[in-house]
Amino acid sequence: MLRERKLGRGVAVVGAGLSKFGVFKDKNSKDLFTEAFQEMLASVDKGLEPKDIDALYLGNFTNDFFTHQAHWGPIIADLIGHTPKAATRTEGACASSGLAFREGVFAIASGFYDIVLVGGVEEMSKRTTSEVTEGLALASSPYEGQIGLTFPGCFAIMATAYFEKYGATRQHLMNVTVKSHNNARFNPKAQFNLSIRDIMDSRIERARSKGEPIPAWKDEQEFLLDPVVNPVVSWPLYLFDCCPISDGASCMLLVAEEIAKNFTDNPLHVAGIGQGSGLDLHAVDDLTFFEATRHAANEAFKMSGLNPEEIQFAEVHDCFSIAEIIHLEDLGFCKPGEGYKVVAEGITKLDGPKPINTSGGLKCKGHPVGATGTAQLYEVWKQLRGEAGKRQIPNPNLRVGAAHNLGGTGGTCTVTILERR
Amino acid sequence: MLRERKLGRGVAVVGAGLSKFGVFKDKNSKDLFTEAFQEMLASVDKGLEPKDIDALYLGNFTNDFFTHQAHWGPIIADLIGHTPKAATRTEGACASSGLAFREGVFAIASGFYDIVLVGGVEEMSKRTTSEVTEGLALASSPYEGQIGLTFPGCFAIMATAYFEKYGATRQHLMNVTVKSHNNARFNPKAQFNLSIRDIMDSRIERARSKGEPIPAWKDEQEFLLDPVVNPVVSWPLYLFDCCPISDGASCMLLVAEEIAKNFTDNPLHVAGIGQGSGLDLHAVDDLTFFEATRHAANEAFKMSGLNPEEIQFAEVHDCFSIAEIIHLEDLGFCKPGEGYKVVAEGITKLDGPKPINTSGGLKCKGHPVGATGTAQLYEVWKQLRGEAGKRQIPNPNLRVGAAHNLGGTGGTCTVTILERR
Repeated sequence: MLRERKLGRGVAVVGAGLSKFGVFKDKNSKDLFTEAFQEMLASVDKGLEPKDIDALYLGNFTNDFFTHQAHWGPIIADLIGHTPKAATRTEGACASSGLAFREGVFAIASGFYDIVLVGGVEEMSKRTTSEVTEGLALASSPYEGQIGLTFPGCFAIMATAYFEKYGATRQHLMNVTVKSHNNARFNPKAQFNLSIRDIMDSRIERARSKGEPIPAWKDEQEFLLDPVVNPVVSWPLYLFDCCPISDGASCMLLVAEEIAKNFTDNPLHVAGIGQGSGLDLHAVDDLTFFEATRHAANEAFKMSGLNPEEIQFAEVHDCFSIAEIIHLEDLGFCKPGEGYKVVAEGITKLDGPKPINTSGGLKCKGHPVGATGTAQLYEVWKQLRGEAGKRQIPNPNLRVGAAHNLGGTGGTCTVTILERR
Repeated sequence: MLRERKLGRGVAVVGAGLSKFGVFKDKNSKDLFTEAFQEMLASVDKGLEPKDIDALYLGNFTNDFFTHQAHWGPIIADLIGHTPKAATRTEGACASSGLAFREGVFAIASGFYDIVLVGGVEEMSKRTTSEVTEGLALASSPYEGQIGLTFPGCFAIMATAYFEKYGATRQHLMNVTVKSHNNARFNPKAQFNLSIRDIMDSRIERARSKGEPIPAWKDEQEFLLDPVVNPVVSWPLYLFDCCPISDGASCMLLVAEEIAKNFTDNPLHVAGIGQGSGLDLHAVDDLTFFEATRHAANEAFKMSGLNPEEIQFAEVHDCFSIAEIIHLEDLGFCKPGEGYKVVAEGITKLDGPKPINTSGGLKCKGHPVGATGTAQLYEVWKQLRGEAGKRQIPNPNLRVGAAHNLGGTGGTCTVTILERR
């Protein structure tokens, strides 16, 4: 049904930067963006004069709420010496910088601009946890908010429906968590970079050193089943199923394909972009998939001419463990109802046939919401350039990766496919 | 210095709609957008199937703050039956829908989409006046906010600097107000559609009917000098120099130029788009111009191949009377320091050689901030199509009009030139 959508002019990625993600009481949004921007500058193989940037797109969900300051486009423009040129903020909840990336692509493909900086930032940790939960709930639908649902509850409802329909259990969700933590061990930018095994062993060691009773966890699953270690947040989602509250920033440099070689001999090609929107949970008949993801993926695949099997790895929006499982299905990486099996079989591990969230995902890398979209694409950039260090996917023929970014309970979704040619 | 920027594919406007602007305690953002959307549908001469809309761009400043709900892209998408297709919110303070229009242009010019709805909405009046002032201040720079400046104060500082440099006075600002009210008389969508003379006469009549002393105002200027009628807000800006708090929505239908004739025999061509960003007031050496406006205008003129003299009329961002005067200069409609003279000479009146704000401007039409950018372009659409009724510019050869949309104290600016061919 969907007509094939093409860009009139190719777009390439030639630089990328990411701040450390975490809780930084002493850093503000400008400090965080500066970190990402400086790494981006250093990443451009043949160099970039910042004055050559034509336009800026910045994803931010609601620093309005978190920092009592809106209108971040010109603030970041000023920070990087970009004034008086164009600076535009995009907002699609947790997909805000997925949108920024896409608008940057359009701005270049239109012929208007040649060199565009896209990125995102969010500064969440200076609010209390309950305030952050309230702020994030601004992104859920008015109907969800009215009945007191916040995001853990929304995704718990989907998990329950998924369990009922397909027979998955809480243990299946844990497989996602264990994998994410294993990957994050090797990501120095991640908020949490210990494996579940590391955390378990350190707790045992602590008990031993204090002369306390030695806990009897025999593996990661048993550890995660301990209600003291991993209390329930909203059943069946427990603490280790949920991404943290984070501060961070990310950015990427996009250029028209015909000038990419001025910046690097190793550019990435924007092979596919897709975007979808979705209805409230109360308005959908089936709570076990995201229509926005399916639409966005379909659009991106059509543009790229690729199919899901040809995507060698992906960053997938895992705000909660259940989200990663459902999205594996919506992205076409497996059939509906098989996502939890695919994870259990190890297919999505770093050394599996389809690595997912090699960065550690939102769960471990952190989720400063407005920064997440381009942070996911930063990971795709690092992997495709062979610069992912100890978490590099062990495949010498890595050529195609994707990032999937979701806002709200599926209100907004972007899917982006990058390709090394 | 600025290279000529062109689009790879032409874009046309083929429909436009506007809600009534005002204070509507019984209407929410969805009600308001529905009003605008329905008028847009009716305005498409050869009809539009809403299902044919490829993507939505929605400008909104901070319903986050005003309504405690963010992520409006998918909410409005759902409202108009657009789900699961792309819906993107743009934010640039009071220029939020100027940005939405521009992103819609890029999305089509890129070749990706053919039919895009752009618009904006803001729902302000359910908050108290002091809360709205606080909310709007989220768009000023962090430095301005920290020293307690809100927008009337920011623009008052610019007015003071302008008076000092060029010898203008408060009476010159009144000329803007009187003109805006004269135009708004003929705009049924305007929040205030009485002339200053009408308001004055009604006050005299009321005094007479109540047997009270008859006020001795002999003309509009004397009326506006009466501190009971027109109290100071932030010197030299008085109540009638300031736009009101408003609710409203607006939208426009953009299509690829090659398919415009499927929708109307009378499309408007997007001749020029420009966007700029600006520094905080504390960071600029000269407070009597907006660098963002100059940059945006320059970009739009370059693209269009037109010069300021060729712009036959314009909607100019008059959040405060002084802003209209300064922007006349920044847009190149007159030299620096001559804006107030041009207004005093009647050049910008409805029947003058360069009509400005024929809609009544933000001052009288109202300023639901996220809706303003496309609301200004709605007025350009109505004028160029000869559909502006009693406020139609008396020039049978009307062909080119512009809209200028500003966010914050010049943080963001868009300039858009539409042309009938």
